[in-house]
Amino acid sequence: MDKVTLGPKPLLYPMPTVLVGANVGGKPNYMTAAWCGMACGQPPMIAVAINHARHTLKGIEENKTFSINVPSTKNAVEADYCGIATGTRADKSKVFENFYGKLKTAPMVKECPVSLECRLFNTMDCGSHALVVGEIVETYADKDMVTGGAPDIEKVDPIIYSNGKYYRVGPYLTDAFSAGKAYKK
Amino acid sequence: MDKVTLGPKPLLYPMPTVLVGANVGGKPNYMTAAWCGMACGQPPMIAVAINHARHTLKGIEENKTFSINVPSTKNAVEADYCGIATGTRADKSKVFENFYGKLKTAPMVKECPVSLECRLFNTMDCGSHALVVGEIVETYADKDMVTGGAPDIEKVDPIIYSNGKYYRVGPYLTDAFSAGKAYKK
Repeated sequence: MDKVTLGPKPLLYPMPTVLVGANVGGKPNYMTAAWCGMACGQPPMIAVAINHARHTLKGIEENKTFSINVPSTKNAVEADYCGIATGTRADKSKVFENFYGKLKTAPMVKECPVSLECRLFNTMDCGSHALVVGEIVETYADKDMVTGGAPDIEKVDPIIYSNGKYYRVGPYLTDAFSAGKAYKK
Repeated sequence: MDKVTLGPKPLLYPMPTVLVGANVGGKPNYMTAAWCGMACGQPPMIAVAINHARHTLKGIEENKTFSINVPSTKNAVEADYCGIATGTRADKSKVFENFYGKLKTAPMVKECPVSLECRLFNTMDCGSHALVVGEIVETYADKDMVTGGAPDIEKVDPIIYSNGKYYRVGPYLTDAFSAGKAYKK
């Protein structure tokens, strides 16, 4: 296949759609983000890129806590709304039913099947965005979606973000750490 | 829905499946990773969590360059193999057809529809893993998969990783920065 060069682009396939939660001035606020990935296994940590101008970042710096919430496709309208409206002008504290965990100051979304409660570990200034890394102190999941100790992606039914569009997760393909055994050198 | 707590877990839905490429001792090596996400928009940067013991990390430290390659479902066997075999014992330089770009030392995978060529920007020691952040200096894509300046996720047909299993991307759901306008306060 012929290759083309597209210049430096922030592209990855797939990207998730998450809601980053933080209390700003004592009130829950959520922003939608696709630039999020795991950062560490032991202890478990997650990284999310947040533009320096974002309201949510103020809350993370204020409390040193935040949450990563995974919406389901049925939450798509509310999740997208949190990416359109800014907390500096809109009150997003009542878009969802909020709950708090161990850290007391990281608001989480009851309607999201999976929520990670995080303590700020460190940030890296990368340019337009701060890469915010948090240690996951607790994982909250809808009881009916947990199979074998972890939420089942088919039940979670998360939202994929790609180039301005949202997609669903598709069917099972094969087993990891197993399919590769068929590779012939 | 009733919530359960699962303890601190490195869970995110969905996670991608990528091949991290680096020259180790002058030879291309690839490792499979799911813990990867965007880190910055301007300049574009990407972050990937790599266990300190991994062979690939030696190559990134050696050259200060690496690549993130997005395999397609048709590359699933080879992609999974690169997550089973370690470069300390197996020669993974011939699993794919390699190509190099501007940086000269970041091997990329011809068979992958999307490859990001990266210059090491910084690393953050998070515990078991180093969070490796690279500035994307060029994006390479299969010509036939590019629509409107970016590869189309449906044509790329990437591999989702979740709890030891691989999944396909499913159908289009709705438009981002648009669906949320229907939210009623």
